Amino acid sequence: MELSECSLNSITVKGASFDRVIQLAETAGFGGVAFWRDVLDDVDLRAGAAMLQRTGLRVTSVCRGGMFPQPDKGARRLRFDDNRAAVDQAHALHADCLVLVCGAAYADLGGARTQVRDGIAELEPYARQAGVRLAIEPFHPMMAATRSVITSLREANDLVEAIGSDMVGIAIDSYHVWWDCYLRSEIARAGESLFSLQLADWITPIHGELSSRGMPGEGCIDMAGFVAECRSAGYRGLVEVEVLSDHWWAQPAAAAVRAAVDGLTRI
Amino acid sequence: MELSECSLNSITVKGASFDRVIQLAETAGFGGVAFWRDVLDDVDLRAGAAMLQRTGLRVTSVCRGGMFPQPDKGARRLRFDDNRAAVDQAHALHADCLVLVCGAAYADLGGARTQVRDGIAELEPYARQAGVRLAIEPFHPMMAATRSVITSLREANDLVEAIGSDMVGIAIDSYHVWWDCYLRSEIARAGESLFSLQLADWITPIHGELSSRGMPGEGCIDMAGFVAECRSAGYRGLVEVEVLSDHWWAQPAAAAVRAAVDGLTRI
Repeated sequence: MELSECSLNSITVKGASFDRVIQLAETAGFGGVAFWRDVLDDVDLRAGAAMLQRTGLRVTSVCRGGMFPQPDKGARRLRFDDNRAAVDQAHALHADCLVLVCGAAYADLGGARTQVRDGIAELEPYARQAGVRLAIEPFHPMMAATRSVITSLREANDLVEAIGSDMVGIAIDSYHVWWDCYLRSEIARAGESLFSLQLADWITPIHGELSSRGMPGEGCIDMAGFVAECRSAGYRGLVEVEVLSDHWWAQPAAAAVRAAVDGLTRI
Repeated sequence: MELSECSLNSITVKGASFDRVIQLAETAGFGGVAFWRDVLDDVDLRAGAAMLQRTGLRVTSVCRGGMFPQPDKGARRLRFDDNRAAVDQAHALHADCLVLVCGAAYADLGGARTQVRDGIAELEPYARQAGVRLAIEPFHPMMAATRSVITSLREANDLVEAIGSDMVGIAIDSYHVWWDCYLRSEIARAGESLFSLQLADWITPIHGELSSRGMPGEGCIDMAGFVAECRSAGYRGLVEVEVLSDHWWAQPAAAAVRAAVDGLTRI
């Protein structure tokens, strides 16, 4: 791929500031950037958006809204407020979408899934008004008890159809879905509901559920096939590199970016 | 559950010999035992079967056959020979089934899945002649690159239907499938193809893909609901406790058995 088709997600260079992520992306020749919200905490987003406009970098996503399953009404209300704040941030940065990490269930999966559906439906009018698309990210099943009960692309597609809004679609990440026997048909089904496309590779052995990931090409996922299928289904946006890796986090940010660039340009 | 409805899998007390597994199961009051093949290596299986008959313990499974995807014809032939040896062992012990860990793919998932289907079809006549049922175990997706490309109950059900033999069914393990949004309907679909039912619990955080498991009740899986759904679908056999756990492996075998018994009797 050309780097101009790619976007650098801030978590790939964890610890880098808003300005530094932009500088790294611009220097390397990326077409876009994506931000986890921890990077946005102390940023003047109006100035930030102006800086992004000067560089020509597109913001492919803000991560994250979601975490809908909560133990009680009060906690759900706090979460709703936080999700509106996330929509505001995505709006301020003209992001292509707000990624939804839908939330986990420690025991009651069915109840959690109902809360996810209701939570997205409740947030949708606010997002619509702000012009911010919501992207449900199906997560790897090993995170069902900690991050998201939405554990396959089929389930995410079912959820998108159940909600039935053109403002609600999918963020698909190779790391979470590559194992799925039904992946190809579900990507085709998702079609233009694909709002975000992210890459990270699967390296064995994993040493935990979160940060064992590899740069594209370091692991076993057929990245070229994955990207081609999403393109063929109708995905028109940039391709994010979003790699949570203890290994790369221990290296200087510039080294992580070089490795990401190496991987992306070989796809 | 009553312990007479349950079976002790040898890996739960890793390191225990064939005789010791039987003694532990009998003393605790289990209705059956199950063996990983490492335990059978130096055992006279005719004498072993006689010992089991004296105790009244049923052998619920032998683990494992499978590992069908191989790089070349020679390797596939060696694997086929080993799978026939596994069938012979299951036959000698009058086991309810031979569990199939179908095998991984490092890159070509589609090709590996074809080799799995062909491998099972090739082994089926030999198993049929021996009267040994083959139980395809859907594995957790985090093991797709290391142990099995069959990563959901839906996929296993599709495979069973494609093979179309009453000697080929399913081994279902709570640890591998609990996260699945479509679990309930796929259990109902499996019905009497359920040849083996195994329990292990999901504890967070995991520290790897293999041996982070908990005794029933130590984690987040709704064990009572899971067992009830399998019973309701038509499963008639014993319920195995099969827990790969670095924590419990570091304890004396008797302590692990006590913990298993505590968990099972609370379901």
